[in-house]
Amino acid sequence: MAQPMVYGPREGLAQLHWNENYYGPSELAIKAIKESSHKGAYYPDLLVNRLKAMIAERHDLDTQNITISAGSTQALSYLAQVKSRENPIATTQLTWDSHLGYAQNIGGTVIRIDNGDNLEINLKAIESISAKNVSSVSIVNPNNPTGLLLDSNELRASIINMSKNALVIIDEAYNEITNKPDDNSMIDLVRDGYNVAVSRTFSKIYGLAGERIGYIIAQPDVIDAIKNNGSGEFSVSMGGLAGAIASYNDEAFLKFSKSMILEAKEMVYEGIASNGLTALPSETNFIFVNLGDIDANDFRDEMLKMNILIRGKYGDFNQWSRISMGKLEDIQRYIDAIPIALEQLRA
Amino acid sequence: MAQPMVYGPREGLAQLHWNENYYGPSELAIKAIKESSHKGAYYPDLLVNRLKAMIAERHDLDTQNITISAGSTQALSYLAQVKSRENPIATTQLTWDSHLGYAQNIGGTVIRIDNGDNLEINLKAIESISAKNVSSVSIVNPNNPTGLLLDSNELRASIINMSKNALVIIDEAYNEITNKPDDNSMIDLVRDGYNVAVSRTFSKIYGLAGERIGYIIAQPDVIDAIKNNGSGEFSVSMGGLAGAIASYNDEAFLKFSKSMILEAKEMVYEGIASNGLTALPSETNFIFVNLGDIDANDFRDEMLKMNILIRGKYGDFNQWSRISMGKLEDIQRYIDAIPIALEQLRA
Repeated sequence: MAQPMVYGPREGLAQLHWNENYYGPSELAIKAIKESSHKGAYYPDLLVNRLKAMIAERHDLDTQNITISAGSTQALSYLAQVKSRENPIATTQLTWDSHLGYAQNIGGTVIRIDNGDNLEINLKAIESISAKNVSSVSIVNPNNPTGLLLDSNELRASIINMSKNALVIIDEAYNEITNKPDDNSMIDLVRDGYNVAVSRTFSKIYGLAGERIGYIIAQPDVIDAIKNNGSGEFSVSMGGLAGAIASYNDEAFLKFSKSMILEAKEMVYEGIASNGLTALPSETNFIFVNLGDIDANDFRDEMLKMNILIRGKYGDFNQWSRISMGKLEDIQRYIDAIPIALEQLRA
Repeated sequence: MAQPMVYGPREGLAQLHWNENYYGPSELAIKAIKESSHKGAYYPDLLVNRLKAMIAERHDLDTQNITISAGSTQALSYLAQVKSRENPIATTQLTWDSHLGYAQNIGGTVIRIDNGDNLEINLKAIESISAKNVSSVSIVNPNNPTGLLLDSNELRASIINMSKNALVIIDEAYNEITNKPDDNSMIDLVRDGYNVAVSRTFSKIYGLAGERIGYIIAQPDVIDAIKNNGSGEFSVSMGGLAGAIASYNDEAFLKFSKSMILEAKEMVYEGIASNGLTALPSETNFIFVNLGDIDANDFRDEMLKMNILIRGKYGDFNQWSRISMGKLEDIQRYIDAIPIALEQLRA
């Protein structure tokens, strides 16, 4: 080939816009991906079954409660398309919603409930609408891009109520990064028979975003509906499955990654405070920063001039800027760049 | 982990049921997958663009004519779902149709035209129905499981006619294995502006089935419709993309693989003839064998007792048995097992 291969971002770019974990993949995952490459000619159906068995074992579930897909987005999209053919899906205004976008593209309807004054999910309002003509409710917890975590007791009680009338879809992409992952997870409600679907991914703390493995835990009829809508379990790669299986129980790697994320977040909170900015309390690997009177797209553009890639504004939330935790040296570059960007934009 | 990892089939099994190429992946692909594993934490969007550019360059197309997905099945399924929401899809009775299954699962209608006396695709009958109320026509060429190739001039003329009324979807998963790949491909019709969608895959001769990379070449509006329906380009893994990019132009590997497939096919044709059986002429890496009065499921079961995995019957085609070309030693095991299986079943 004429050009050399580049697998990550271009040299020198601090990529801090996609909530990846650059301390991953774990060494066990890398080793497994390499070993599996020699068998890349074979469809990896047996590895799908193996990963499902591991997930089932951890959560005391049946493999019929689980489906694997190419990142959780794929199966969530199938599910949103299935449900939106029945009735509208209710969600929050400011949230991650790629799966709902695909549902809307094919004619599905999405009802968006305004966030509260502090950008929190308005759980009461969603609960209220769930009793009406909606097929399902979609909640990301902790939420993205805010990083805010719902109170687990309130959420659990609300889900038990909502699930009488609608399928409740809880995206737990960042669960492992929260303070008490087990308490904050709603997987126990699936085990207890409620109409809840919980999604998880290997793209975030596991550091395997590039290898595209996610999964959904739900009642068997919901799992079957997802499978009927597309080729989820036939879309995942042998390398991705090998990496996921090898690192699923790699506690040392997960602990190290979480400590790096927490250290990066402390640095960012200090850095923005010393520049007179504030931010929402994050239970994830990203922080939602309030830029005051500065436009988030302008701030992103200034950062990019310094080879730092962050997110621009979300919808009408003009002054809010999301920064992902990357390697500590890249976080330091971001912090050092804040006063330069602010000075440019206030000039 | 308690159990050792096994990436391919279990030890001792001659897996000859999925049309994979066990002479792959190419050494270049394996090397690239291994290198890329270190960057598995990054979403691989830039590699998607790079692969599209390579495909566009080879076929003198724009990248807007191309979409990548997790195996061609994923994008074909999206496309079938899009089209079947408009009007029925017409296809052949005996053919590969996983994508049409997903369309039917969500309420789409598929019209199936009987194969001809020699199991060939009845192109005239499909052309006739395409002028009526169908959204699209789906043809696999060479066809699976028959291995039969349509005459390229007849097919090209027919597509030009059919595409006036319907989108014509041509699955060319086995094109590279045919006698004259360029002549047999319909990609030139996309270049010439016809309403044709051609799918290709890295799962067959490229020996990358496990890594799940395929693509569709079509007019930009069709490509956009596929993308709107799901997360195709966001479902492919970094390892898969690395392997596909590295081996796309690996002519030495492709030539070697093709020679092994041709040698295996000669062995099978000789082996079945010496046992008094016949088979269809295959332009693919599998052969459709006529077992006469023997049931294909019974034959498959006898083979499995000897640790040889082949396909059972397709629909009502009870006496037809598909065997994939694997490594030559596994093909020899299949050939040696034929008289034993036949003796058991005729006893």
